[in-house]
Amino acid sequence: MNLILLHPEDFIEPVTPASAAQAKGTGRVRLTGRRLDHVREIHRAEVGDRLCVGLVDDRIGEGRVTRIDSGALEMEVELDRHPPEPLPLTLVLALPRPLVLKRVLLSVVSLGVKRIVLLNAKRVERSFWNSKVLREGELSKPLTLGLEQARDTRWPEVSLRTRFKPFVEDELPEIIAGTRPIVAHPEAASDCPRQLKGPVTLIVGPEGGFVPYEIEKLEACGCESVHLGERILRVETAIPVLLARLF
Amino acid sequence: MNLILLHPEDFIEPVTPASAAQAKGTGRVRLTGRRLDHVREIHRAEVGDRLCVGLVDDRIGEGRVTRIDSGALEMEVELDRHPPEPLPLTLVLALPRPLVLKRVLLSVVSLGVKRIVLLNAKRVERSFWNSKVLREGELSKPLTLGLEQARDTRWPEVSLRTRFKPFVEDELPEIIAGTRPIVAHPEAASDCPRQLKGPVTLIVGPEGGFVPYEIEKLEACGCESVHLGERILRVETAIPVLLARLF
Repeated sequence: MNLILLHPEDFIEPVTPASAAQAKGTGRVRLTGRRLDHVREIHRAEVGDRLCVGLVDDRIGEGRVTRIDSGALEMEVELDRHPPEPLPLTLVLALPRPLVLKRVLLSVVSLGVKRIVLLNAKRVERSFWNSKVLREGELSKPLTLGLEQARDTRWPEVSLRTRFKPFVEDELPEIIAGTRPIVAHPEAASDCPRQLKGPVTLIVGPEGGFVPYEIEKLEACGCESVHLGERILRVETAIPVLLARLF
Repeated sequence: MNLILLHPEDFIEPVTPASAAQAKGTGRVRLTGRRLDHVREIHRAEVGDRLCVGLVDDRIGEGRVTRIDSGALEMEVELDRHPPEPLPLTLVLALPRPLVLKRVLLSVVSLGVKRIVLLNAKRVERSFWNSKVLREGELSKPLTLGLEQARDTRWPEVSLRTRFKPFVEDELPEIIAGTRPIVAHPEAASDCPRQLKGPVTLIVGPEGGFVPYEIEKLEACGCESVHLGERILRVETAIPVLLARLF
């Protein structure tokens, strides 16, 4: 937790000014639960210490501890800086197995990805869609951890699409409009491009890859298949490598 | 398991010719345990099927299944190609927590890293050194999975160094000789370089980073501190990003 992510409901004195993006915002927060435990056990903070904080979808700054005990952590916070720039990328990812999904979400959110579509594909196991990781309250956990890791506040948007063909035919054209649409595909002829300047839509298949029909559909929609060399990588390794190459 | 990694003791008829690196090697193998289970349950192979195989520190090729049942998998193997090129990189990594270590080893081995030094540092928890992951038989598991993932056969070398100062003073100068020595350090002034042509020694600190004394020692030894931007990444995300940037 390199930043403590605050939500509007944490404020016991509301942040002021509420919306002036340039001005300094101040307020008082009271935290319990996971964030209190973490600050007590890992940061071992005491009254007077200053911690890095950020308000979700708002600025980042510092919180000065005014109370810390088993009941609550209270801080006077000042928000005066913008969070890091997001990556200009939409990630369309064939739904991985639940444990991998949690790690991948944390990882891509820490890298600045703000728009994630989890998609079905032939080689996605049906049972993955029933995972409790996909429930509303659970899905937000790795997103929070990813923002806290990278000292970011901009909440990412995650959508679930359980039908491949309607997604590719009806929604993908709009998503890729104005972006360079790239499919990571180990059997592709072209090497993954490097250091692109503009926005990208990156599409990543399941373990075992997209089946030929899926690649055909994606290419028919205008996507470009690229590979990362002869080594086949796990999705949790391939995605950071792809993002580091593309930007 | 994109490749079934074979060891000399798997051969019931030895691979011939044993050492001529250019010529085709053939032989017969019998496998039990994890590899048998995987081929039966995941590949669902039958007699006559061809599977990708490789002999450790030797060539890769195909195995034709001649028997598969609950007792054993037998194959006639032909080894006729070289494994992918290794990365010209030595990775010196402050020992991460055991679960992270397993994932990082798998990931870096799949990316082609062949020389890994696990090092102590101020912010490495002492208990990590007692982890069973570091025992000989356990440490080889993520290495095997990494090679199998990337269709590689060249066995990586992992060394453990529990004393930071003697390692940096007595061993590091020889390791970095002829390489570009780089320390990943979020507070560094320079950005991580891209697409280097020559060999690199990459040094990565623990969660929380190296302490200033450690950075000073590494820089005094000739290492260059670089950062990856304002986002602070977990070690399992940072390492694939670093490798993708450097090569």
